[in-house]
Amino acid sequence: MKLHDALAPYLGVHAYGLGDLLHEQARSRPKMPSVIDGDHRFTYAQLDERVNRLAAVLRARGVERGDRILWLGQNSFRVLETLLACARVGAILCPANWRWSPDEIAFALDDFDPKVVFWQEAEIGEINRGARKAWRPDSNWICHDGCADGDNYEGLIASVDPETDFAPVEPSTPLLAIYTAGFSGRPGAALLSHESLLIVAWLSQVAQGVTEKSGYLVSGPMFHLGVLMGTLATFMAGGRNAFVSRVDAQQLLEMISAEKLTHAFIAAPTIAQMRELNADGKYDTSSLFADPGMSDYRMPMVMPAASPMMQAPGGYGQTEIGGLTIATWMGGVAAGRPSPFLQVKVAGEDGIELPVGEAGEIHARGPLVMCGYWNRPEENARRVVDGWHRTNDLGKRLEDGSLVFVGPKTTMIKSGVENIYPAEVEACLRQHEGVADVCVIGVPDPTWDQNVKAVVVRKPGASVDPEQLIEHCRAQLASYKKPKIVEFAESLPRSAVGFVDREAVDKLFGGGGYPSVG
Amino acid sequence: MKLHDALAPYLGVHAYGLGDLLHEQARSRPKMPSVIDGDHRFTYAQLDERVNRLAAVLRARGVERGDRILWLGQNSFRVLETLLACARVGAILCPANWRWSPDEIAFALDDFDPKVVFWQEAEIGEINRGARKAWRPDSNWICHDGCADGDNYEGLIASVDPETDFAPVEPSTPLLAIYTAGFSGRPGAALLSHESLLIVAWLSQVAQGVTEKSGYLVSGPMFHLGVLMGTLATFMAGGRNAFVSRVDAQQLLEMISAEKLTHAFIAAPTIAQMRELNADGKYDTSSLFADPGMSDYRMPMVMPAASPMMQAPGGYGQTEIGGLTIATWMGGVAAGRPSPFLQVKVAGEDGIELPVGEAGEIHARGPLVMCGYWNRPEENARRVVDGWHRTNDLGKRLEDGSLVFVGPKTTMIKSGVENIYPAEVEACLRQHEGVADVCVIGVPDPTWDQNVKAVVVRKPGASVDPEQLIEHCRAQLASYKKPKIVEFAESLPRSAVGFVDREAVDKLFGGGGYPSVG
Repeated sequence: MKLHDALAPYLGVHAYGLGDLLHEQARSRPKMPSVIDGDHRFTYAQLDERVNRLAAVLRARGVERGDRILWLGQNSFRVLETLLACARVGAILCPANWRWSPDEIAFALDDFDPKVVFWQEAEIGEINRGARKAWRPDSNWICHDGCADGDNYEGLIASVDPETDFAPVEPSTPLLAIYTAGFSGRPGAALLSHESLLIVAWLSQVAQGVTEKSGYLVSGPMFHLGVLMGTLATFMAGGRNAFVSRVDAQQLLEMISAEKLTHAFIAAPTIAQMRELNADGKYDTSSLFADPGMSDYRMPMVMPAASPMMQAPGGYGQTEIGGLTIATWMGGVAAGRPSPFLQVKVAGEDGIELPVGEAGEIHARGPLVMCGYWNRPEENARRVVDGWHRTNDLGKRLEDGSLVFVGPKTTMIKSGVENIYPAEVEACLRQHEGVADVCVIGVPDPTWDQNVKAVVVRKPGASVDPEQLIEHCRAQLASYKKPKIVEFAESLPRSAVGFVDREAVDKLFGGGGYPSVG
Repeated sequence: MKLHDALAPYLGVHAYGLGDLLHEQARSRPKMPSVIDGDHRFTYAQLDERVNRLAAVLRARGVERGDRILWLGQNSFRVLETLLACARVGAILCPANWRWSPDEIAFALDDFDPKVVFWQEAEIGEINRGARKAWRPDSNWICHDGCADGDNYEGLIASVDPETDFAPVEPSTPLLAIYTAGFSGRPGAALLSHESLLIVAWLSQVAQGVTEKSGYLVSGPMFHLGVLMGTLATFMAGGRNAFVSRVDAQQLLEMISAEKLTHAFIAAPTIAQMRELNADGKYDTSSLFADPGMSDYRMPMVMPAASPMMQAPGGYGQTEIGGLTIATWMGGVAAGRPSPFLQVKVAGEDGIELPVGEAGEIHARGPLVMCGYWNRPEENARRVVDGWHRTNDLGKRLEDGSLVFVGPKTTMIKSGVENIYPAEVEACLRQHEGVADVCVIGVPDPTWDQNVKAVVVRKPGASVDPEQLIEHCRAQLASYKKPKIVEFAESLPRSAVGFVDREAVDKLFGGGGYPSVG
């Protein structure tokens, strides 16, 4: 008797994706509230039905397995619904950064090639209309928040019968796409599988102490994995996700107070605004902060004080390995230890593991690791060695096995909650006809931790000034990525092998203090 | 660009089995103690090397993917090592019940057909020698605890070079076999995959509050999934597993005291012995029990009072779905709610989901569910309907989505076309104030094949008559489920362990002729 002959009946039993989790929530927690967003409040059973309707809409638009869906809008409970509908039909959702410039949107449309685009009228309607016109005017664009002149989300899902016939989706299928850093100056969309998202959701649930009684304020941007993970952890636990379209200190206070929310993602400057607005204690924030003055605020991921991650904050991660999947709450010092389902090694360029204490590139493998970058076969081939994903980050092991994050192979700038990759800004500046050479660094800022500064060598005879270069970037990049300061230099210090010596540039031009190095 | 062309480099990155977890523990916790057993104490790095040596031994004996390994011995750290070596080479380990009779061992040898048998000299050496002689005298038998006349575990692993060349094992591959109860009178070995074991280990880690600082007393039998799960949860967290070959109250006290153990599996009668032996407080058991008199003992799975499972004990499970994977610590009442990675539905014989409140068979699907029974193609085919595993157990959903375990579906009554489950009718009758004990059986009927008959023991002094009990059921159950006949008895025949002996009730009160459970 061969193994698989006898076991054949069970081969179809094990597939389990995010859509299956929703099915089970509708069975196990039918009447519990799942999403809250303005006037919208839906239970898990209602969410299940709405997602089945949305899946029917997507099928009617010809969406099939592996097709891409782009979200051009701010935060909304409909991002979660769309993700779950994609899970049901086997498609891939990319929630775009709603601050993208028209050029960046155009790039993503060409690169990601979505079968359906969900777009938003409020605040960014004009930019979205422009992008649609410039791309494929006859493509599938569905407005999620109501528009006078096109297909509307609510109208469409009201007009169809809920889809109920779903073949199981393989857990290794990509479901989420997040545009990340410039490994080559141009961002690429990291694809995360059902399996990765489910494991990370569970990990976040444990780390942040999320239960079915929790309420998560989805106040960080949903194109960030850290925020999506809070959302998915809460969804998995059977708790409430409360959405705000964008950060507004007043609205956050109202939501926390009205819904007794227990978890959130809030940047420090917003906390300062909230503190000021609530100086009179008008809003009860005690579900989130023990202290009315919010002096117990510690990090953007706000959670109960007893949560493992609050007890031992710190860690290392990147979108490509499922976010913060190496963490001190699992033990150890520095960045801590990898979570279950992740293997990590520090290795040289040849992929051979280095001895304890020696710095090298952090490699990872296991189901948490991404499926690769969309549409980047060469980069994908470059990033995998012997079945290990190369993170492009440097680290080392300590004697006790703890992992130390040494720094990015390309230095990252952190401004507020935004990650800015010098390589991307430099690539943009290099396109300017007046620029001969450039190095982008982070300089300290009292409010945002860091600001972007460009050190530029002008071409001989070029008369370009700082304002022109900043304007050049503003037109092509999200506004937060543009340099705030441009300084000109005669030349840039270079290493023996010819690369710009970033450390020397930092020293000469006031940069440094990059996040998480150490 | 096709999806998988661009992503091809990443296809080999995601496989992750229990052997990979061991590799990572050796990297992340090299010097932390992993196993303690008598004079043996090994760190995670040492465990990794020993497992690599054992894997080399297995390979030298011709063990290949899908081959079976049988453990005929008591608890030992070598059960964990053997499981991990099987994980590395893709084999399947069955830890047998060491109290099996020669006939039962002979049955398992024929049924499981192991390539290698690990056997034990101490206490059960004679029975094992007899089994070897009767089966295949020339087969691969390795004695784990030292014998004078054969291959010895420690000698063999000392004589080989550690194996290091392991191809990744698919997570869906079976790794563990546990013989479970007779669906047809003969036990069958349920096969659990790497993926199932890893998820359940994590689940147990969360439920029981296991961290890398925890120490687990492996004092329950390792052929029980509940005990193995405590072992694997501790292994995954990076804690210490402390093994005892069998339950001995004195030895347990010594281990707990010496190793400051935090978790254990101890049956209530053993606790009573320990209490007596430690009346003078000679042994410090405070790492495990807050009260020196162990009055805070609650259940065989002993864990810190703050653990989620201690805060909300209760649940439903079976080996075939990864053990106790539906639990109240995840919310709800009665048996509670399913864990992540498990879907559950209550359905009729046709597999169609039943409405809330209606009893039917509990079905499960997802990666937690077994890969099937070894060598039981017909039973496997019978147990899967539309991609769902049938548990052979009855349950229902409450309004809030909680699952209620009604009873095993061992004796189904068929009346006309209706299926009636005695457990459900018994549960209804037990609610009547006049009923002390009850057994519901099926008696022959010329028209309907069977009728429902209740054999009832009245409470002392209760004057209830049959009509009242029938009416009581009519008011609460579908009419066809109510007993047509009620007969009173002084007592019900019971088995040695206290369960009602249904076969004896059938003989005494005219029952039998049940349809085969199908």
